[in-house]
Amino acid sequence: MAPGLNNKEKKDGASSKETSIHLSNPHLNSMKEDILYHFDLGTGSHDLPAMFGDVKFVCVGGSPWRMKAFIQYIAGELGLGDPNADYTNICARTDRYSMYKVGPVLSVSHGMGIPSIAIMLHELIKLLYHAKCTNVTVLRIGTSGGIGLEPGTVVITKQSVDALFKPQFEQVILGKTVVRNTDLDEELMQQLLQCSKEIDEFQTVIGNTMCTTDFYEGQARLDGAFCSYTEKEKLSYLKDAYEAGVRNIEMESSVFAAMCKLSGIRAAVVCVTLLNRLEGDQISSSHDLLVNYQQRPQKLVGYFIKKQLQV
Amino acid sequence: MAPGLNNKEKKDGASSKETSIHLSNPHLNSMKEDILYHFDLGTGSHDLPAMFGDVKFVCVGGSPWRMKAFIQYIAGELGLGDPNADYTNICARTDRYSMYKVGPVLSVSHGMGIPSIAIMLHELIKLLYHAKCTNVTVLRIGTSGGIGLEPGTVVITKQSVDALFKPQFEQVILGKTVVRNTDLDEELMQQLLQCSKEIDEFQTVIGNTMCTTDFYEGQARLDGAFCSYTEKEKLSYLKDAYEAGVRNIEMESSVFAAMCKLSGIRAAVVCVTLLNRLEGDQISSSHDLLVNYQQRPQKLVGYFIKKQLQV
Repeated sequence: MAPGLNNKEKKDGASSKETSIHLSNPHLNSMKEDILYHFDLGTGSHDLPAMFGDVKFVCVGGSPWRMKAFIQYIAGELGLGDPNADYTNICARTDRYSMYKVGPVLSVSHGMGIPSIAIMLHELIKLLYHAKCTNVTVLRIGTSGGIGLEPGTVVITKQSVDALFKPQFEQVILGKTVVRNTDLDEELMQQLLQCSKEIDEFQTVIGNTMCTTDFYEGQARLDGAFCSYTEKEKLSYLKDAYEAGVRNIEMESSVFAAMCKLSGIRAAVVCVTLLNRLEGDQISSSHDLLVNYQQRPQKLVGYFIKKQLQV
Repeated sequence: MAPGLNNKEKKDGASSKETSIHLSNPHLNSMKEDILYHFDLGTGSHDLPAMFGDVKFVCVGGSPWRMKAFIQYIAGELGLGDPNADYTNICARTDRYSMYKVGPVLSVSHGMGIPSIAIMLHELIKLLYHAKCTNVTVLRIGTSGGIGLEPGTVVITKQSVDALFKPQFEQVILGKTVVRNTDLDEELMQQLLQCSKEIDEFQTVIGNTMCTTDFYEGQARLDGAFCSYTEKEKLSYLKDAYEAGVRNIEMESSVFAAMCKLSGIRAAVVCVTLLNRLEGDQISSSHDLLVNYQQRPQKLVGYFIKKQLQV
């Protein structure tokens, strides 16, 4: 059940020695028990090393349904389970997040927006640490609005930038603003791009991803409950974003990149674009087409994992 | 099915004339159709006035399970349905939010954090506008961390303040920071406090609510994946918050207050405190006690609605 490092991973990975989770919190060692409240898991109530010690890949995404579909898909791809089986939600006692596992792959939902994914990541990073996991790769598979791209294009994030196109994540801690780096793993993004070429079924690019705190006004949409700018001003902003290398917009990548980097976890963001924001704001494609688009990051990341495990 | 204004509401409400939803977006009028994407509803696909035109009270909360429990509870309280019945989730075709309705009461989940509730509110405000609803009151029922209060105390928010204790909500629009007012309805908070006195089952106070973008470092917790401050610094920050009138901390009230105010909607925030943050960080109370606590905002708001409708 617990695959060790294989040759492929040794060759491609950043290091051939075991990399464990780096937890920058001296207080945790003095706690008798750690309750991961939003997962309804804990060190006192669960044997986390037995449950999660073999995890090598964690895929995260906003939608609980999509993360369940992902575990079914990857189970089939890796030959570890029936893709039509009903996998158990490990966090079934709470409705905050959903979590599924097959073999070395964990699939976790994170809801929408920076605060929602940040809560999940705090608890996920602690979970991986308590479970003594090593050499973990975390991949966010999501949806986004594209800029200047054909809808359905997949974007692998080079840098996650804020609404001023700066590659950083600002957070207020004890009333003071702390600025964190949002760099992602360069080698991993190239590996993913190579996988997309091998799959050869949809367009994939590497580009900057703008991470906003609002879907409507924060992304220059004209169709929210409020809008105080013109279409011309909207397009000017989006074109400035394009000039700054931004190819898609979503709402979680900055804190995801920052937290994974702080924990020494290799991470990537792979999002499909549901529309071209230079041409509109409403997501009006058919349900079937949107479902097809949403399967693309899943397919790309599934292929990558399979290749890494040499199944 | 569609109750008009009753005498009680005329007497207590801010105005005796019909108040409709104020939508500050000139672009919406020129749209042929408005797709409320995250609800999987729309003006082209659904008859929103027929479905929602009678809504007078909207209760929102983070957890989908709790919002389903609320609709069952209020159905029983108002004599409009069986509290054990399985109410239909109006947004069942999406997993982003859950929505339930009985009579004039709508119950909607919003996930965790400002961005998640903001997406929901943009679409909710447009929904109420398209449905031609009038005299709507929106109430957030949630959970929070208390400061200097006995766990289980309910806090009715006076002002929603940010992590620097300022009563404002900052948002970046087209790269520029816009500051919005987070005032809530003074008369409504007094009405709710009066209801709590009449129920006389749990402690309720009016106080400021700090709205943060992170649950761990953003709320000065010592038990996140990262922590760079001491327990002394944590307590100093929380005591400063207390001095500024803050009695509880949650993650949605600022944008909730700002967006309701911009739309001319009467709004309140009613959250129970699950722990006293001056005494700890982990939510370690028993499952049953936490369930009991979470029923308190529901009970208070249910009592208020029943009183307003004079059932």
